[in-house]
Order: sequence, then structure tokens, then C-alpha cells
Amino acid sequence: MIRKNNIQVALIQHSFKQTKEKTIEYTLEMIRQAAINGADLVVLQELHTSEYFCQSENVDFFKYAESFENEIEIFSQVARKNNIVLVTSLFEKRANGLYHNTAVVFEKDGSIAGKYRKMHIPDDPGFYEKFYFTIGDNEFRPIETSIGKLGILICWDQWFPEAARLMTLGGAEILIYPTAIGFSPNEPKEEQNRQLNAWLGVQKGHAIANGVFVIAVNRVGFEENKLIESIESKTTTESKIAESSESKIAQDSTKYADSAKSNQINGIEFWGHSFIFGPQGEEIAMAKTQNDEIIKAIINMDRIAEVRHMWPFLRDRRIEFYQNITKRFID
Amino acid sequence: MIRKNNIQVALIQHSFKQTKEKTIEYTLEMIRQAAINGADLVVLQELHTSEYFCQSENVDFFKYAESFENEIEIFSQVARKNNIVLVTSLFEKRANGLYHNTAVVFEKDGSIAGKYRKMHIPDDPGFYEKFYFTIGDNEFRPIETSIGKLGILICWDQWFPEAARLMTLGGAEILIYPTAIGFSPNEPKEEQNRQLNAWLGVQKGHAIANGVFVIAVNRVGFEENKLIESIESKTTTESKIAESSESKIAQDSTKYADSAKSNQINGIEFWGHSFIFGPQGEEIAMAKTQNDEIIKAIINMDRIAEVRHMWPFLRDRRIEFYQNITKRFID
Repeated sequence: MIRKNNIQVALIQHSFKQTKEKTIEYTLEMIRQAAINGADLVVLQELHTSEYFCQSENVDFFKYAESFENEIEIFSQVARKNNIVLVTSLFEKRANGLYHNTAVVFEKDGSIAGKYRKMHIPDDPGFYEKFYFTIGDNEFRPIETSIGKLGILICWDQWFPEAARLMTLGGAEILIYPTAIGFSPNEPKEEQNRQLNAWLGVQKGHAIANGVFVIAVNRVGFEENKLIESIESKTTTESKIAESSESKIAQDSTKYADSAKSNQINGIEFWGHSFIFGPQGEEIAMAKTQNDEIIKAIINMDRIAEVRHMWPFLRDRRIEFYQNITKRFID
Repeated sequence: MIRKNNIQVALIQHSFKQTKEKTIEYTLEMIRQAAINGADLVVLQELHTSEYFCQSENVDFFKYAESFENEIEIFSQVARKNNIVLVTSLFEKRANGLYHNTAVVFEKDGSIAGKYRKMHIPDDPGFYEKFYFTIGDNEFRPIETSIGKLGILICWDQWFPEAARLMTLGGAEILIYPTAIGFSPNEPKEEQNRQLNAWLGVQKGHAIANGVFVIAVNRVGFEENKLIESIESKTTTESKIAESSESKIAQDSTKYADSAKSNQINGIEFWGHSFIFGPQGEEIAMAKTQNDEIIKAIINMDRIAEVRHMWPFLRDRRIEFYQNITKRFID
């Protein structure tokens, strides 16, 4: 197969549409829209089939992972029908009591090009992922596709230079991060700006240090913390549960435990800003809004060699002195 | 000794002042100026006692390294007299035919707190450092001082996330990069901007990923490539050599070989932009000009814990999967 030098990329950022079923339908329609005018690669946001359910710790949400295989089938079909390489982010049940935050990558013919189980799992107020997901046990290895080697990583992974570097050493040409990150509405504006800039900044750093493209797709919209709400106003919550139960996929997944959590936040305002950075850290595209949006761009894969010839960082790594990176701390 | 939480930092960026002797005198005066209004930490740029001589490969420049011990004496005295922790960047002769690009850090009492020999050495047109400097053979270990643990790294090191991470794991609270980087005047403006933004971006990335302060001090001014000039206009060059030989320190170091080099550039416009980033990547200070300037700021060391409590990246590193970072490439 002859590799294309110019890859048409589409990032799809959107809010949660009340139920899993409606959200998946909406995403499928956005993918079709993206493909109409041509797209080689379509990237979806983290856990795009549902709300970001990790705002509280609730065993009922494990139901969402039951449809993992079914969702693979759905997205395989849409990849094949639209002739796109498709990066999805799903909730995987591996065994009872063993769940992963898993990206599944589809080839243009609908076959599975590869899977990546999120390696770095966060746990902080509003992002209780250690409750839901076990740490991945895959190596940091890029997934080979018809358009190039994709270094798939997920959200919290984006803060770890080791992950970006290992994917690069494995030959990744594009690092791809489906993400779900946002502001707590309680935080002052300047802190929100620092957080957003840090998120953009650390990933721009990966692009530069590794001479690779970096793509992140982040969700948008405010999602309230339903657990908090359920405590504050039980009647209102129950009416919402009724509405939510229209979803067949999400059935029975909307009963929330009543136990309160310390430091919980009222909800998350997901900040969008999905972007593509080039291998010199240059901004190729960024979402113009914090609303649903398809961000499209053409990336030229020759740019990687061009930048690395000028700045040959891979040539000069002092690998014989890097051993201590495998330590927790040097003390 | 009780550690201060608020550290007064001064960065000194300046151009080369025709001779080594004049340049050192000028730097000493800037250090005094910085200390008058109080400074705990003063950082100088890379190879601050001379021009950036690596624009060509010329054995005569090894003479510069003969005064390494003498310069240590000079800067030790100024650290003691001004009661500052001082980060210098010198050309070290270790043995005949064995030279290093070495940062020497002085304690407030003038004693040597530690040395760091540049680990990553560049080599590209205009930056022929592999000719002059052998790669350092020190571990990436921070230097303990009365104001904190300083992760001293030098210029090209700044592109390597491994170096920043190892210093952080060793307990570094501030990463400090004396640097000498600039534009080739031949490059188009947009390429110059991309390079400058990449330089800022990769270091901001280190601050964020590691939750540390990052300081870089970069030289300013245009320095012509004298080798090129000596070929193009021999008479002019000889008059400059006569002028330059006023310097006692630099005596006999200004005879340039006549052999041409491929791809050599006419000179380098050092871009300044010395800066301090905080542990969330926030900009604390940046040079306002591309001229000689003392950049001062107070940094609050408590900010490190504050940011790391919010974003505990060190907690979640998957060290059991990082082993391959010690490989050249995973193929």
C-alpha cells in the first residue's frame, strides 16, 4: 500500500446527549459529516458514548461496559462505510470486576487495527477513575494503520513525557489523545486559564521534544455531578433518571448511590479546545468554540523528517544515563 | 539553615563585549547591580565569558578553556561578596584534548556547590559543539544549595524530557538552563517564530510535566561567523583580530582557520527571551527586550507542593513500563 503524505484529519468534539443511545447516534452522524468532504482519520473524544461518569464512584456505571463488544461492532461498521481510520474511546469489560478505559482503533475496512488500554489513571475530586478502570498492561506501542503509526494515549497519559517518548521510540508519527478534561465552575477564571494553558502546553511540549504530530480531542459542555445533585434534590434527580432511562444501552445505569464524597465538585465544564500541533509545536488547528464542532485539517507527514533533520534530538539522547527513569524517585 | 520560601531570582542576559576580559567585567557589574536590590540566586547565560565560539571549528578556541580555574576564582569571589547563589557556564579543560561545557554553581559563601557537565551536545550548522565539548559523564543529579535543589542543565539539554524528569526525580525544585540560541538571519520570519516558540514551548512543558520552576537565560546580540568573514574579507578580519587582542584572557584565540565549512551560516542573532516559568507552566517573568537586561522576580517555593497536590503526576508514573526509554529506538 502506498502511504499518503497528506492526511485529512477530522476531530469530533461534542457534548453528552442525555443518553448513551442518543449520543452514539449523534456521533455517527458527525462522523458521516466529517467523511462527506473526505477524511482519512477521524478521532473521537474520551468515553464519547456516554457522559463522563467518573465524577462519582457508583457501581451502577459498570453496566456501561457491558456494551463494549456491541459498540465495537457499531464503530467498525461506520469506519468501513466511510472508509476512515477511526479512533474510538470505550469502556471495556475485561472480566467481572476488571474494567479498562480503552481506545479501539479501526482500519478503513472496519477491521480492528489495535487497542490501547489507558496506562496512567487519575484520581482526584471529580475524576475518580481509579475506581472504574484498572491500569493498562499493554506496552506503549504505536498502532500500525494504513495512514501511519498512531501513538494512541488517553487523557491523563498526556501529562507523562515518558508515554510520548516511548510511543515515538516505537515509531509513532502522530500522538493521539482522546480526552475529557474541564474546569470546575468553582475555580477562579485565572486558575481555569492556567489549567487550560498547562494542558495545551504539556502536549505542545511532547510534539516539540519528539518531532511528532499531536492530536487531542476533548469533550465540551457542562455535566453536573449527579451524585451531589441526588443528595441536594432527590425529587429532581428522580425525574431525570426517568428521562434518562429512554436509553436502551444505558438502561438501569442511572441509579446513583446516596453516599456523599468529600471535596466533590458540582460538575465539570469540559473545555473543548481540541487541537492538532505539528512536529515543531506549531498550531495546525484548534477548535474555534467550546461547542460541538468538527475540526478538520490536512497534515503533511513529510514535516516530521524535515523538523527532525533540523533538530535531531533522537540522535543525541544519552540513553546510558536514563536508567533512573524507571525509579519511583531517586532518594 | 532555615530555607526561605520566597527566593529572589535575577537572570542576566547580555551580548558579547568584544573581548573575554571586557565581557567578564561587564557581567560582574551586572551581577552587582542585580544584588544591590537583593538577589538570592543569579543565573548567567551559556558560555557567558566569551562569544559563542562554536559557530566554526577552530582549534585556537581551546585556549579559552585554559582560564577555567581562573574564572572559577573570579566568580567565586563575586558570589561571596554579593552573598548570592550564582550559576555560571564556563569552558572547562579537563585534560589536553578533553574539554567540557560546564556549569559551576557557587554557594553564597563563594564555595563551589557543584558542577554539571553538559550531557547532550548539539552539532548542526553554526552550532559545532561536538568539536569542542565531550559529552558529560555526570549523572543527572541536582545540586544542593542553601536556597533549594537546583537541576542545572545546559542549552541543548532543554530539548530532552528525560533530563528534566531525572533532575525532578532527584529532587530538583528549579530547573536552570544557561543557553545560547538564536536565529540564522537567513531564515524567514515565520520560521524564526516557530523556533522561538518551540524553545519556549518545550521548556514550559518540562515545568508542567514535572511541577518545577524552569529558568532559562539566553544571550542576546548578533555574533557574526568570523570564519566566513575571514574568507570573504581577509583584510577586515585582520583589523578585528588586532582590536580583539587587547584582551589578556582571550590572547591568541582569534586566529581563524581558513577552511570553509558546508552550510555555514553568516552569524547568529541570539534571541534573548530569558524567562521563569512556574510549576504549572505559568509565566512568572520574561525578558522585555532582546538587549542586555536583568530580569528579576520572586518565586514562591511553596507553589511546587500546591501544584503537585492538585496534579499528582509523580504518583501515577508507570515505572514498570518505562524500561524501553533506555533504548536508542524500539525496532
